[in-house]
Amino acid sequence: MHVLILGAAGMVGRKLTAALVADGGLGERALERLTLVDVVEPPQPEGFAGAVERRAADISEPGVAASLVAARPDVVFHLAAIVSGEAEADFDKGYRINLDGTRYLFDAIRLVGDGYAPRVVFTSSIAVFGAPFPDKIPDDYFTTPLTSYGTQKAIGELLLSDYTRRGFFDGVAIRLPTICVRPGKPNKAASGFFSNIIREPLAGHEAVLPVSENVRHWFASPRAAVGFLKHAATLEGGRIGPRRAISLPGLSCTVGDEIEALRRIAGEKVVARIRRESDPTIERIVAGWPTDFDVRRAAELGFVAELRFDEIIEAHIEDELGGRFVA
Amino acid sequence: MHVLILGAAGMVGRKLTAALVADGGLGERALERLTLVDVVEPPQPEGFAGAVERRAADISEPGVAASLVAARPDVVFHLAAIVSGEAEADFDKGYRINLDGTRYLFDAIRLVGDGYAPRVVFTSSIAVFGAPFPDKIPDDYFTTPLTSYGTQKAIGELLLSDYTRRGFFDGVAIRLPTICVRPGKPNKAASGFFSNIIREPLAGHEAVLPVSENVRHWFASPRAAVGFLKHAATLEGGRIGPRRAISLPGLSCTVGDEIEALRRIAGEKVVARIRRESDPTIERIVAGWPTDFDVRRAAELGFVAELRFDEIIEAHIEDELGGRFVA
Repeated sequence: MHVLILGAAGMVGRKLTAALVADGGLGERALERLTLVDVVEPPQPEGFAGAVERRAADISEPGVAASLVAARPDVVFHLAAIVSGEAEADFDKGYRINLDGTRYLFDAIRLVGDGYAPRVVFTSSIAVFGAPFPDKIPDDYFTTPLTSYGTQKAIGELLLSDYTRRGFFDGVAIRLPTICVRPGKPNKAASGFFSNIIREPLAGHEAVLPVSENVRHWFASPRAAVGFLKHAATLEGGRIGPRRAISLPGLSCTVGDEIEALRRIAGEKVVARIRRESDPTIERIVAGWPTDFDVRRAAELGFVAELRFDEIIEAHIEDELGGRFVA
Repeated sequence: MHVLILGAAGMVGRKLTAALVADGGLGERALERLTLVDVVEPPQPEGFAGAVERRAADISEPGVAASLVAARPDVVFHLAAIVSGEAEADFDKGYRINLDGTRYLFDAIRLVGDGYAPRVVFTSSIAVFGAPFPDKIPDDYFTTPLTSYGTQKAIGELLLSDYTRRGFFDGVAIRLPTICVRPGKPNKAASGFFSNIIREPLAGHEAVLPVSENVRHWFASPRAAVGFLKHAATLEGGRIGPRRAISLPGLSCTVGDEIEALRRIAGEKVVARIRRESDPTIERIVAGWPTDFDVRRAAELGFVAELRFDEIIEAHIEDELGGRFVA
């Protein structure tokens, strides 16, 4: 089979590519061909004997989407997006990439015609929900985003469901929890501290905790995210029905729960590398975020996430640190 | 003040124009200027001394939206849309007018800049909801449309809320109930019979009822619709908050309730002009439509609809038939 990944150079895109290569396929079908696309040229996947095309391309430019789907990939992973902060700072760019780009991709697939209707997996976000909401957001809760990014993702979900209903492709939109532990350097995202306070202490570095330990949030590991994508790619469309946007499972826990799990796994000396330094701006932003979901529907469809934060830390130590941390 | 009406040649647009002219203004402000736009040139409003511009224009054509808002109207009513059946039959046209046209309008307003932020009233629809749903759809229920029209309206709502949050304009999206009694000839809309079985018998003609008397639906009169639009135009933005899409009040009643009200008002001889002729296709379509709503939020915001179907029939007799019907 031929798999196209848009956003293949990003953290999740690279992990997904590596997992598909390691698995040798998706579901029952062998992987023969990979098309990897991002705004920068994605890296060559290691250990893959099949055909690989790697392209630096912007799907919001005319003709690009059509050229990407002309070879009729069987599965299209659309992970490419301008992130929340940038979509808020640059209104035009956010709408151009996240809305126009997504629509150009969907239309390019539609216009191939001739019975072509690939599985399209679109990564949406819990940012489609805007405060206030119930402590546990149900599967039928309305999408009232409070960011342009969340608006663009909610629109992508609507388009995907309509194009699927019309038979132009067979789409699944998955609302990912906050990915934790994110590998790499600390960044300026307001959500960064959820990962920083685990990743940095395990690497022997100090991390800043800008909020109270009572702050609750919704998490899944990068490993779980790859599992979600693979499951979404192979799930039978008839089981999903016409409502193609799915809030995925995650783990609802507090910052205090994170720290306790770190103490159990790595000990007091590692935990002592977390420095409390309250940041009212981040406290205020985080107060508007979802804390828990009722994901009955995703569970019935077979999506699985971690049940304890310990598993999230263990996945990080195994996948990113070669099984070792700085005690 | 200067009012721009897009879709001014339609049934609701003409009634709104006439009401604004009769009122002489909106809220506290006098009406000085009207810009009336539709795909065909809207009629000259009678009895208006102010400036009127009437234009046949397509807002999905480049530059049209910018030219319409260049004079900075204080209130923009965006009623223009390809209707449900046509948006389903012609995919490209529906998206071009209902999505691109709406976005071009919103962007044209945004790009005026310089502090310009008019009230924008956008007519959405209960078609943003897709079956199955609860008998009474709550204010926080999710939008999972089952038509391209409903998808386009749901996207319009999301854009309107985001553009409002950004301060580009001050938008209100109102989800109108099914308008009944629609004046004019019977048409081929699947919902036509709800009006036909009242309007035609009152005019001395036979009407066909293609569904069972147990079918329940959600109604407001054209008079109520004009009231909704005027209220939405003058409502204080701070009272609405960031969730700018509002399910409006209506009357939930069955076809049997409609017929009983007609009997009370017009007598048995008029009711006898309704001929039962079951149509399984229409039965099936109607089974997927909403039947009732919890509209607490709209009620708190002061939107008012009819409470009894008798009032809907009386409004029709007064507004369309000069107070008389064919007994």
